[in-house]
Amino acid sequence: MSFPKSIETLVTEFMKYPGVGRKTAERFVFYTINNMDIESTKNVADALINMKKNINHCKLCNNLTDDEICSICKDEKRDASTILVVESPKDVFSIEESANYKGLYHVLNGVLSPADGIGPEEINIKSLWDRVTNKLVKEIIIATSSTQEGETTALYIKRVLQDLDLTVSRIGYGVPVGLNLEYADNLTLSKAIENRKKI
Amino acid sequence: MSFPKSIETLVTEFMKYPGVGRKTAERFVFYTINNMDIESTKNVADALINMKKNINHCKLCNNLTDDEICSICKDEKRDASTILVVESPKDVFSIEESANYKGLYHVLNGVLSPADGIGPEEINIKSLWDRVTNKLVKEIIIATSSTQEGETTALYIKRVLQDLDLTVSRIGYGVPVGLNLEYADNLTLSKAIENRKKI
Repeated sequence: MSFPKSIETLVTEFMKYPGVGRKTAERFVFYTINNMDIESTKNVADALINMKKNINHCKLCNNLTDDEICSICKDEKRDASTILVVESPKDVFSIEESANYKGLYHVLNGVLSPADGIGPEEINIKSLWDRVTNKLVKEIIIATSSTQEGETTALYIKRVLQDLDLTVSRIGYGVPVGLNLEYADNLTLSKAIENRKKI
Repeated sequence: MSFPKSIETLVTEFMKYPGVGRKTAERFVFYTINNMDIESTKNVADALINMKKNINHCKLCNNLTDDEICSICKDEKRDASTILVVESPKDVFSIEESANYKGLYHVLNGVLSPADGIGPEEINIKSLWDRVTNKLVKEIIIATSSTQEGETTALYIKRVLQDLDLTVSRIGYGVPVGLNLEYADNLTLSKAIENRKKI
C-alpha cells in the first residue's frame, strides 16, 4: 500500500523544492496533518499564491517588489548618484542586510553567457544605459560575481559605459574577513594578492 | 530594507515547517519566484488544501485515508485474523513499505503517558477492544515503540485483552540487521540478549 492519494500528491509537490527529498517531503506532510489546522494550512497556500501573483520587477532597477517601484528606488534618502549593479534580486537583499551601502541598485537578472545563448539583449543592460544617461549618476559599482561570466559581464558593462562621464568600479574580491589563509582557495588567494592595498 | 511583504509572509509560513530555517525558507521562496509558474504554484497550494480537507482517520483502524475506510481495511485479501497495533499512521506506511505483513492494523494515535495526562481514553484502545471481540481475530501483535511509554501501552493492552481467547504478542526488539555490535546502544543490546533465540 502507498499513501492515500491526497498525501502522495502533496509529497510530490513538496519534492519540487530544492533540497527536499522524499523523507523531508513526508515530514512536511505529516507535520501539516498533525500540527496544523485548516486555517494555518490555508495561510501557507494563500501566502504562496499571493506572493506569486503580487511579486514583480521594479520598473526602474528590476529588483523584486510588490509595487511598480521598489522601496529602495522610492526612498528619497538614498544616494541617487551611485548605482550598484548585481546579478539577481537576492544579491540586493544580501547587500542590504550586511553592508552600509546607501546608493541605488540595478539588477541584471542574469549574466552574459554566450555559451548558453545569453547575450546583452537577454539581461537588463539596456535599461542600465537608460538610467546612467541621466545626469545624476556619478558612479557605477559592478558587483557581479567573480566567475568567468560575472567578469565578462563586468567588462562588457565597463566598455558600454566608457565614453560617459562617470566612474565605473568593481567591488573588491579577496580573502573573506575572519578566514584563516590556509582555508582560502587558490583563485581567491591570487585575487587577494592582485587586489593588495598599500598600508 | 527587508524583503517585499509578499516574500516576507511566505518566508514566515515556510519557516513553520520542521527543519526549515530562514535560509531554507528563502531558498524555497526564490525557487517559487524563479523556477515555478503560477500554475505549478497553484498546484502546491491546492495539494495542501485538498490534503488537509480530505484526509481523515479510517473508521475501523484509525489509519489515515481519503475515504471512510482505508485501503488496507477494504482489501479482502488481507488476513483479518491478525491485527498489528501501532502508535501512528506513519508506522503503518513504514511497515507496509518494508515488511511482508499481510494482516490488518490498528492505529492508537498516541501512547499512554500518565505524566502528560494521556490515559486509555485519549488513545484508540476502546475501538481496539470493539474490534477484537469480533470472533475473526486470532492474534494481536503490539508494535508500539521500545520506549517507556510504548512498553507501558503494550502491557496495558495485554492486560485489557488477557481474558479473551487470542494470542497477544510483541514485535521483536534487538540489534538492527547489518549493524555492527559496537554501534548498538546498551538498551538495545540488553533487549537483544533478552530476546535471544535457540539456533
